[in-house]
Amino acid sequence: MSEDLGVTKKRSEDFGQWYLEVVRKGNFIDQRSPIKGFDVILPWGYSIWEQIQEKFNKLIKKEGVQNCYFPLLIPERLLKKEEEHMKGFKSETMMVTEAGGEKLDEKYAIRPTSETIMYYMFSLWIRSYKDLPFKVNQWCNVVRYDTKVTKPFIRGREFLWSEGHTAHATKEDADKFVEKAVEMYSEIYKALAIEPLLLVRPKSDTFAGADYSVVFDTLLQDGKVAQGPGTHMLGQHFSKAFNIQYLDGKGKKNHVWQTSWGITTRQIGILIMHHGDDNGAILPPEMSPVQAVVVPILFKGKEQIVAEKAREFCDRLEKSGIRTYLDDRDYSAGFKFNEWELRGVPVRIEIGPKDVENKEVVAVKRTNGEKVKIKADNAGAVKNILNDVQEEMMKKSRKMLADSIHDAKDMSELKNAARKGGFIRTNWCGAEKCEKNLKADSGGFEIRGTLYGKGEKVFADCVQCGKPAKHVVYVAKAY
Amino acid sequence: MSEDLGVTKKRSEDFGQWYLEVVRKGNFIDQRSPIKGFDVILPWGYSIWEQIQEKFNKLIKKEGVQNCYFPLLIPERLLKKEEEHMKGFKSETMMVTEAGGEKLDEKYAIRPTSETIMYYMFSLWIRSYKDLPFKVNQWCNVVRYDTKVTKPFIRGREFLWSEGHTAHATKEDADKFVEKAVEMYSEIYKALAIEPLLLVRPKSDTFAGADYSVVFDTLLQDGKVAQGPGTHMLGQHFSKAFNIQYLDGKGKKNHVWQTSWGITTRQIGILIMHHGDDNGAILPPEMSPVQAVVVPILFKGKEQIVAEKAREFCDRLEKSGIRTYLDDRDYSAGFKFNEWELRGVPVRIEIGPKDVENKEVVAVKRTNGEKVKIKADNAGAVKNILNDVQEEMMKKSRKMLADSIHDAKDMSELKNAARKGGFIRTNWCGAEKCEKNLKADSGGFEIRGTLYGKGEKVFADCVQCGKPAKHVVYVAKAY
Repeated sequence: MSEDLGVTKKRSEDFGQWYLEVVRKGNFIDQRSPIKGFDVILPWGYSIWEQIQEKFNKLIKKEGVQNCYFPLLIPERLLKKEEEHMKGFKSETMMVTEAGGEKLDEKYAIRPTSETIMYYMFSLWIRSYKDLPFKVNQWCNVVRYDTKVTKPFIRGREFLWSEGHTAHATKEDADKFVEKAVEMYSEIYKALAIEPLLLVRPKSDTFAGADYSVVFDTLLQDGKVAQGPGTHMLGQHFSKAFNIQYLDGKGKKNHVWQTSWGITTRQIGILIMHHGDDNGAILPPEMSPVQAVVVPILFKGKEQIVAEKAREFCDRLEKSGIRTYLDDRDYSAGFKFNEWELRGVPVRIEIGPKDVENKEVVAVKRTNGEKVKIKADNAGAVKNILNDVQEEMMKKSRKMLADSIHDAKDMSELKNAARKGGFIRTNWCGAEKCEKNLKADSGGFEIRGTLYGKGEKVFADCVQCGKPAKHVVYVAKAY
Repeated sequence: MSEDLGVTKKRSEDFGQWYLEVVRKGNFIDQRSPIKGFDVILPWGYSIWEQIQEKFNKLIKKEGVQNCYFPLLIPERLLKKEEEHMKGFKSETMMVTEAGGEKLDEKYAIRPTSETIMYYMFSLWIRSYKDLPFKVNQWCNVVRYDTKVTKPFIRGREFLWSEGHTAHATKEDADKFVEKAVEMYSEIYKALAIEPLLLVRPKSDTFAGADYSVVFDTLLQDGKVAQGPGTHMLGQHFSKAFNIQYLDGKGKKNHVWQTSWGITTRQIGILIMHHGDDNGAILPPEMSPVQAVVVPILFKGKEQIVAEKAREFCDRLEKSGIRTYLDDRDYSAGFKFNEWELRGVPVRIEIGPKDVENKEVVAVKRTNGEKVKIKADNAGAVKNILNDVQEEMMKKSRKMLADSIHDAKDMSELKNAARKGGFIRTNWCGAEKCEKNLKADSGGFEIRGTLYGKGEKVFADCVQCGKPAKHVVYVAKAY
């Protein structure tokens, strides 16, 4: 994998190119697979996914969600059972039509999401109120044959995800689980040091077959936004289509209420475009697969003692629970510095002959390049730096989001604000026509939704038609 | 999921039916998905897979193997690059031919295994000897459209697996990694408390495109065998087909030497058919997702104190590192006993009012139903029981394998031995014709291979043709 590590573009020059170089050269993802949009997730990128998996598994298991695995393929007839759902995915579905050189009797869709196949099984399993709430999750690959294949991680045709699905006896219980899922994803966002904008999507952009969708819209440094995790209240649409009923305590049959929710490998791209700088990615300590990389700086005649002390310090860090990597590869120290900066490891530890003499090491913060001398027996100091960095990144993210939100009372203010990117807060009458016109008039800015969890008072008439507004909405340009 | 838990068949009556009932009622797997051979891995089955993943990830990461993720789909033209490989999988490959309602220009195979797509990328990545050895692994789903779809886990059309792939500078280094992979799988087998027969497959059954394959053949209680993990020395077949070359220290280009190796969800079925008894599965403590289940036995008026003490003991077990589950569900104790026996949890802890009075609990061993009284502050006693059970299961497995191997000098002895099932040790000249005839004459017993790692001296002429034998081989009937 020996390649040139330099990122040739600054974010301000060409954000897209900067991102492409960071993810490729930083060992996150490779787009050169033989099928467009089916990218190879490289080891460093995958290890971030493993961090997300580990943390999220802990959260869901505490809530009694059980992992399991459902089939990759879905018979076309099942997909068609919930009409709205089918419509939502039809244009993106890849179909298997042959096996062993023979044509199949029936076409199978590669899952774009698993509601239909899962709920077919739910209808076999759920019988009584004692079976509820029923909570499962699967980690798997899904395929959506998107016509736009622009950015690796952000928009690909195959991605990995966790999809959680629950069934409840009552609407209230299902609504509550939506809140719970949002809470769990908020924990993940905290670990990612990202402040999201929690929105309820307008009907036009609600998940196919859902009553409402709550999403983590995330601001990127180019002023555009990307959707992170989504949580969907499915109501009884699917339970009616798939006949998922339970007997209540009085012997009466009822349809269950359902939720589904997901987080995907897209999150890795969001992370990079949210936090990165011109030297590459910057990973928050809580999520970085390696929290501290130790680089021995070897000078002739001093190699052995430096290597030894580097190993010692490494062991010390590991013992105090820090994910550490000793980079003793046969490359120059400069090459290693660049590579770990590109990958975004939050703290680099340098140890040279001078440091050995002084019984010190040098810790370098990825966020700002700040160097701190640390006593060679003081692993706690590195822990403190990691905690500080996590907090600083979170603070910065909060400010970035707050600073990006601008109010607009009319289209002229909206167009003005649109030049700066970020979110525009405005008022909407609720008509789909105004939603469409707004997007056309603003050069692609779209209504992303209303604030989740708290109503906001409209502060002007509908930004499009001038009639009384019903909702305060957030508008942005999205990936 | 409230269902009848009883297993209606004994192993001796109908082993196949016994297995089907155990895996379904024990919450391992459900075959009722709408596509034959694409089964649903249920939470309990999946949690065993998570145990395997966790243990195997630790082993491979120690060896510097990096996890990553390659595309699900493989262009047909890539599959064709290594002819022998293509031939091996052609009859089982499912093809994607449509996307978004339109016919695709090119057909894509759903991966039956990932050599071709991975090695296409290897050829882009590997440049210099500094890049070697190169070691990656992926956890993913694969699809093989097998015409026989008999047993869930054992023979399905979609399964989950880990597939590891390495590239080396020399044949010696690749051979050594084959040994390493075998070692890692041996660790897994130890945790599974299964004694495998390590065999090198005959050419006819070597992995498509490999020089040789080392497999963990595993005896099941019906006398048939199932292949567990496989490790393949790929030589330079793929590196030549895919042009994977590196520059050595002297500036000369060489093709790399490769290995691939895999372990699949089939292992869960093997585990059940190897260890189970008439009451269900029996899981070895090291691999059981729950090592001890605590069941409070509630009597009127004493519910609270019993529940409290059960919780206390549960906490104590967890603190001492035992994976514990407190079963306080609203079912009868008898139902719970049956369910956890069916699932195979190695130790059940019962706590009733009498036990509370005596400051005791009762530990029941899944293997033999033995009951042991334990002081309520003595979590260590449970740990000891778990260790003992692991060892007993391993011993039993070793004996089961050793007892099953019978020697045969000629076909009449072989047919005789075949009636007992298990492995038959015999002599073979090496001719494919004899291999085929042997299978036909013996009613389906086939040459599984020669012992891995140690040569055995032939003890008679070829069991088929009577000409001088070259190999001592192991013959068995396989799933």
